[in-house]
This record gives sequence, structure tokens and C-alpha cells, in this order.
Amino acid sequence: MTAMPNRVKIVEVGPRDGLQNEKVLVPADTKVELIRRLAAAGLRSIEATSFVSPKWVPQMGDNAEVLGRVLAGSASGVDYPVLTPNLKGFEAALAAGAREVAVFGAASESFSQKNINCSIAESLARFRPVTEAAQAAGVRVRGYVSCVVGCPYEGEIDPVKVAEVAETLISMGCYEVSLGDTIGSGNPTSVQRMLEAVMKRVAVARLAGHYHDTYGMAVANIHASLQMGVAVFDASIGGLGGCPYAAGASGNVATEDVVWLLHGMGIETGVDLDGLVDIAAWISAQLGREPASRVARAVLAKRAKAVLNE
Amino acid sequence: MTAMPNRVKIVEVGPRDGLQNEKVLVPADTKVELIRRLAAAGLRSIEATSFVSPKWVPQMGDNAEVLGRVLAGSASGVDYPVLTPNLKGFEAALAAGAREVAVFGAASESFSQKNINCSIAESLARFRPVTEAAQAAGVRVRGYVSCVVGCPYEGEIDPVKVAEVAETLISMGCYEVSLGDTIGSGNPTSVQRMLEAVMKRVAVARLAGHYHDTYGMAVANIHASLQMGVAVFDASIGGLGGCPYAAGASGNVATEDVVWLLHGMGIETGVDLDGLVDIAAWISAQLGREPASRVARAVLAKRAKAVLNE
Repeated sequence: MTAMPNRVKIVEVGPRDGLQNEKVLVPADTKVELIRRLAAAGLRSIEATSFVSPKWVPQMGDNAEVLGRVLAGSASGVDYPVLTPNLKGFEAALAAGAREVAVFGAASESFSQKNINCSIAESLARFRPVTEAAQAAGVRVRGYVSCVVGCPYEGEIDPVKVAEVAETLISMGCYEVSLGDTIGSGNPTSVQRMLEAVMKRVAVARLAGHYHDTYGMAVANIHASLQMGVAVFDASIGGLGGCPYAAGASGNVATEDVVWLLHGMGIETGVDLDGLVDIAAWISAQLGREPASRVARAVLAKRAKAVLNE
Repeated sequence: MTAMPNRVKIVEVGPRDGLQNEKVLVPADTKVELIRRLAAAGLRSIEATSFVSPKWVPQMGDNAEVLGRVLAGSASGVDYPVLTPNLKGFEAALAAGAREVAVFGAASESFSQKNINCSIAESLARFRPVTEAAQAAGVRVRGYVSCVVGCPYEGEIDPVKVAEVAETLISMGCYEVSLGDTIGSGNPTSVQRMLEAVMKRVAVARLAGHYHDTYGMAVANIHASLQMGVAVFDASIGGLGGCPYAAGASGNVATEDVVWLLHGMGIETGVDLDGLVDIAAWISAQLGREPASRVARAVLAKRAKAVLNE
């Protein structure tokens, strides 16, 4: 096992991965305000939106407006990656001012077919013009791999397959690959086994963990990944994207839960936990519900009690 | 680090620790049925009730009836420990047929004072006649230590204090000591640090982890404890005792979340996960709400979807 990192970077995916999976359509004003607040809380990488067809993802139909307004009011030193599934999306993102984009592949052949209607190899081939165009434009590219532990169609995924896809994304020019446990079926053992295989092909400094809390394992999986030296984790404010009250919640791990874990373990993030809880409460109210994360609920309850006792 | 256990024992605390902290008063019939179902799902140690004054804990006022009925219909090979704070409680438990009792101390002086109105030393002295009477009657005694990581009044607790209390309980005749993170403030680092100190005085085979999920850290803390060789964990079906919907939920970790983690890691428990989910759904319905655990919610949602797709 590698030494644990003493500093971790959080990639906030709530405004994109989160809101995209919420049923409530959030106005652009709210998205811009959400991103502004997240930056103010100390997050330094905030996935802002997705440049996909609004036919497929109506929640992100305001992508150019959101990105444009975010960049206009942007804090310095903050990255705002946007998802770009193909060259058309990349060009739209570039026109809107994007300085960082993200592409996504799957480690499961069936998931790739059902989700984006092509094989893994075809999806990777489709990213090549994106990464080339990005390089030419000086735009950074981040890669996502989904289904790195389990797949809803195939069950367990061979860690070697994950390693292959991750290595290909890095070789195509991605500066980092985010390993996604899309269905949340991973546990510390299977996640460490997967990471072991990937780390044979890709340096751990180029890996990020992207874990879903569907079965409540995300925090344990982050702990297991820290033990392997992973120092970047994706998370979604308030657990956006998977409401625990809804049936079939898919559930990005909540940013405040991750930061609570890390700060408790003495690992720096540069993020203000109380600020995150405020944002989780605020955005959840916009969606008409309570925050999804245990940390947000517990901290808010403690604050309410402190007020009562005053 | 010790090798991870390949088999873990779950001590189910839902019927006592869980229901005691629920606002809804559950009838004896339901308690007896809950315990029967838990035994049928494979649990081999089920904390049945508490022999405390009904003035203090009205939820457990039916203790003699519940224990008597449980023992009358008991499956063989199942232990039904009951909480006994003092000799009077022990004698009532013995009269009701108890073959195993539990005593509880705190690792925090302030918590001991505020919770049971005496010092740690006084509380331990009070248990001595209980453990002596138990030994004379051939009754097993389990010990609990609360606030092993943090205390609501004192903040962080010195692991050496936890080790002292745990060692005293063992020396008084407890066959096992359950280490309770009462306020859920522990994380994998602080839990491992605490265990390290305790394991200098007490063999790991005599230790159990009792973690609360207040801040969503319980599963990670169990993973961290497994890495230290701990092979017994307390858990509460459906997360009874800490509803995540309620403000200030204190939250025992849910049995089904623990079993999901362990089975995923290839660790045997002898417990039927699907059976646990059924029980979590059933007892939550008795309390008029949804199950608190992510595993129960996710598995139930998946089942509902499978029915829809048939």
C-alpha cells in the first residue's frame, strides 16, 4: 500500500452529473449561483454543464449560457470542465469559452452499447478527434470510465478491462481519468482490486475515484482508495443526482460527506465544510427537498439544536 | 495490520438499542415477531430488551414479557442478551430467564456523569456485583463502552481511557467488549488509533465495533476495524434508532448495510441479506416510515423495478 495523501482534490460534479439526474429542471440563474457558491466554498474544479443535445438531456439545454456566465464571473484558479461526448459538443463548448472538457467511456461492452449505442472501441475512436482538437486549442481533457466495478447488464467487470480503457484515455491525452462505480456496487475489496489493476498501467497521480453511494459504500470505497494513494475524488454537493428518498436512487457521493471524512482523517482539501452544508441546504430547498447527505442532515440538526439552546 | 477476518459475527441491537431510541412505542407482539424474524434470517446474537426502570425507558417496559416469549419460542444456538444497568436489573433479567446480559460504561467522564449520574469508576464498581452474580448463575456478560472516539461534552476522547475501561470490563468477567462511537464522530483514522490503544490491553478477539452512522462514516469505520482484525460488529436492522429523516438522528449503522459490505468483501456472516431487507421494510412500516438504510432502499427499489419489467 502507498502512503495516504495528505491533500486531496475534490472535483465537484453536482451542477452537471448531479442536476442532470434530478427530475426538477433547475433554471440557469440557479445553476450559475450554485457554481458561484461552490467556488466560494473553496472548490477548485467544478463540472459546470454538458454539451450534449438538449433532445437527450434537456436539463443541460442552457449549457452555453451557464458556462458563459460562470466564466464571466469566474474566480481565478478554478477549473470548470464541461462534458463533451463528441466533436460537435466540443466545438460548442469551445465557442462558449470552455478551457477544460471531459469525455466518457465505459469499461463494460454492454453498458457502452445500451448507453451510447456503440462499442467501447468505437466510443474511444470518437473521442480521438475531440482530444486532438482540444490539444490544438490548448484545452485540457479529463476522461471518465463508467462501470469500473460492476455493470447493470454484465455484473462484475474485469479490472483489466478498466485498466485498458483508462490507459487508452491517458494515451489519447487525458490529463486524468476518473474511475466511476456507476451502479454503486463496489466495496473496499473490489475497488482496491480494480485500482491495483489500473495502477499497473496508469500512474496513481492521474487517477480519480468517482463513487456512487447507492448501497452506502462510497465513503468506505474512498477510504480504500486513499490507502492505495488516490488523491482526487469526484463528489456532488448535497448528493445531487441521487435522492435517497426516491426509489432507485443512483446517488453520487455527497461532497460534504467526502470532505467530512477527509478533514476527520487530517487530510486537507481547501474546502470549507460549513459552507458546503449551507450550499447543500440551499440547493436542496431549490429542488423542494431535504439534503440527501448524512453530514448535511446531522450538521443542520446540530445547528438547529444550538439555536434552540441559546 | 492483522489479516482481515474471513467470518464476522453480527450482534443485532435493533430490538433494544434501536427501538429504545424510536419515538413510536412498539407493542410486545411486534418486538417478539421482529426478534423471531431476525433469528430466522440467520442472526445468532440478538439484543432482546433492557431491564431498566420503565420510568426512564418506557419503550422497554415490557422487558420480562418480551424476553420470556422470545426464549419460549427460541431457535437453538441463538443468544438473546439483555441490558442490565445494575443488580436489580440483573435479578429481574435472570428471573425472566436471561442467559446473557450486558453492562455499559463510558470512556468519557462527563458523559458518564450526565448519562448515568456517576463517575466512570463508580459505574464500573456498580457492575461488579452484576458480573459476580452473573458468573454465579452461569450467565454470560457483555460489556459496552460508549464515547470511544468522541463525546458530546468533551470532544475527542483519549484512546488510553477507552483501553482502561475496556480492560476493566474484561477483567470483571465480560467475555467481549463492544466499543461504541456513540455520537458517530469517528472516522477510519481515529477508529484505528483507538483500536490500536485498546488492542494493547485487550485481545482483538474480545472486541466488537459499535458504530453510529450519524455522519455516514460507520461502514468506512467497519472497514477500518476489519483491517485491524475486529470480527464482531453491532448493527441495527433498518438502522432502527436513528431515523435519517428526523433532525438530530443518532443512527446505529443498519444491519443490512454491514452485511452488504461484508458479503461484498467475501466475508461470511451466516445471515441472509434478502431476508434482512424484508425485515427492514416490515419493521419500518410498523414505525410508519421507509427503511433508513441505503441498502434496503436500493434493494427494494430494484425489486420494484424488476416487478414492473416482468
